[in-house]
Amino acid sequence: MNKGLLFVISGPSGAGKGSIYSKVIAKTDLKRSVSVTTRPPRPGEVEGVNYFFRTEEQYQQMIAAGEFLETAEVYKNFYGTPKAPVFENLGKGYDVLFEVDVHGVKSIKKKYPEAIAIFVMTPDFETLEKRLRDRGTETEDKISIRLGAARRELSEYKLFDYIVFNDQLDVAVQEVLDIVTAEKRKIKNNMARIKSLLGEN
Amino acid sequence: MNKGLLFVISGPSGAGKGSIYSKVIAKTDLKRSVSVTTRPPRPGEVEGVNYFFRTEEQYQQMIAAGEFLETAEVYKNFYGTPKAPVFENLGKGYDVLFEVDVHGVKSIKKKYPEAIAIFVMTPDFETLEKRLRDRGTETEDKISIRLGAARRELSEYKLFDYIVFNDQLDVAVQEVLDIVTAEKRKIKNNMARIKSLLGEN
Repeated sequence: MNKGLLFVISGPSGAGKGSIYSKVIAKTDLKRSVSVTTRPPRPGEVEGVNYFFRTEEQYQQMIAAGEFLETAEVYKNFYGTPKAPVFENLGKGYDVLFEVDVHGVKSIKKKYPEAIAIFVMTPDFETLEKRLRDRGTETEDKISIRLGAARRELSEYKLFDYIVFNDQLDVAVQEVLDIVTAEKRKIKNNMARIKSLLGEN
Repeated sequence: MNKGLLFVISGPSGAGKGSIYSKVIAKTDLKRSVSVTTRPPRPGEVEGVNYFFRTEEQYQQMIAAGEFLETAEVYKNFYGTPKAPVFENLGKGYDVLFEVDVHGVKSIKKKYPEAIAIFVMTPDFETLEKRLRDRGTETEDKISIRLGAARRELSEYKLFDYIVFNDQLDVAVQEVLDIVTAEKRKIKNNMARIKSLLGEN
């Protein structure tokens, strides 16, 4: 049996990586990763389903023990992807998909270079600006900060294996699904089957 | 503008590479390659559409001048893929697909390592044997020769980038289409667009 594949979706805020991620998870049997967080549970959130909820002390112990594939601080709360469940799924041959920020991709690629990283981008920065503005929730200052961040994130393109330009959501989702299929058809991901056909194991 | 991509489909006789090739050509705007041959034209075959028809002397001159990406002799006739029209299409940004035998893939990869090679295989050798037998045109001797060849061809899997197991033709065709899409989404095949977005060229 071949190990599962680890797919990571990232990209600037406003490019649609979250929507693509959810639709791809809904359409496939890719396993998602449940993050660990120090943020308190919101009503209805279930331990082990939405998040693993931990105290800051517990979280820091997990960092010290090297239990994370990536970890980030957002508005004084920590969010991280725990290694163990991801590697367990991969070891069982399940493919895994998760969504992280570009900094997280860097960390994951360092710890697991076989990870397949997909950058989700709008067709251009003008479209990104328009989408951020159309949210109606972002001040001009915030829009300009987000655009600057988007430019820095895209300039990290060498970290990534693929880029999907999200012009129409359904097309972008299909392209991510196509990338998943293509990766599964790579020779290196079919060695066990090929060698078995050739009677080599 | 990025250069076009060169896709090559190969695999054992009976695995269905020809059917997959034709369906993929029909469903996409991938350019096909017109082969050069020394075999005489059959009724209805058109120069430059079905083949470029050449005398054996002309063909040998083309070999000597290094004009082929790959060339093979089949039943005393020569068949070859001419370099010039392929490279012209790639240079214009068109993607190209062709079907060659495994020996041809080796030759193409040597001359153009960026070529993306897809191996088409039946789910197993028993299925291949059944398909060859169901043709009703192959003697037992020929079936056994073809199965031996198929095994040698699959053992060259390291030449290839992808393997598609042709269990149901439509699924296999879709997988090849997905591979084409995924390759187009690779970072390295989007450098021109990314650098333009970043204002780097």
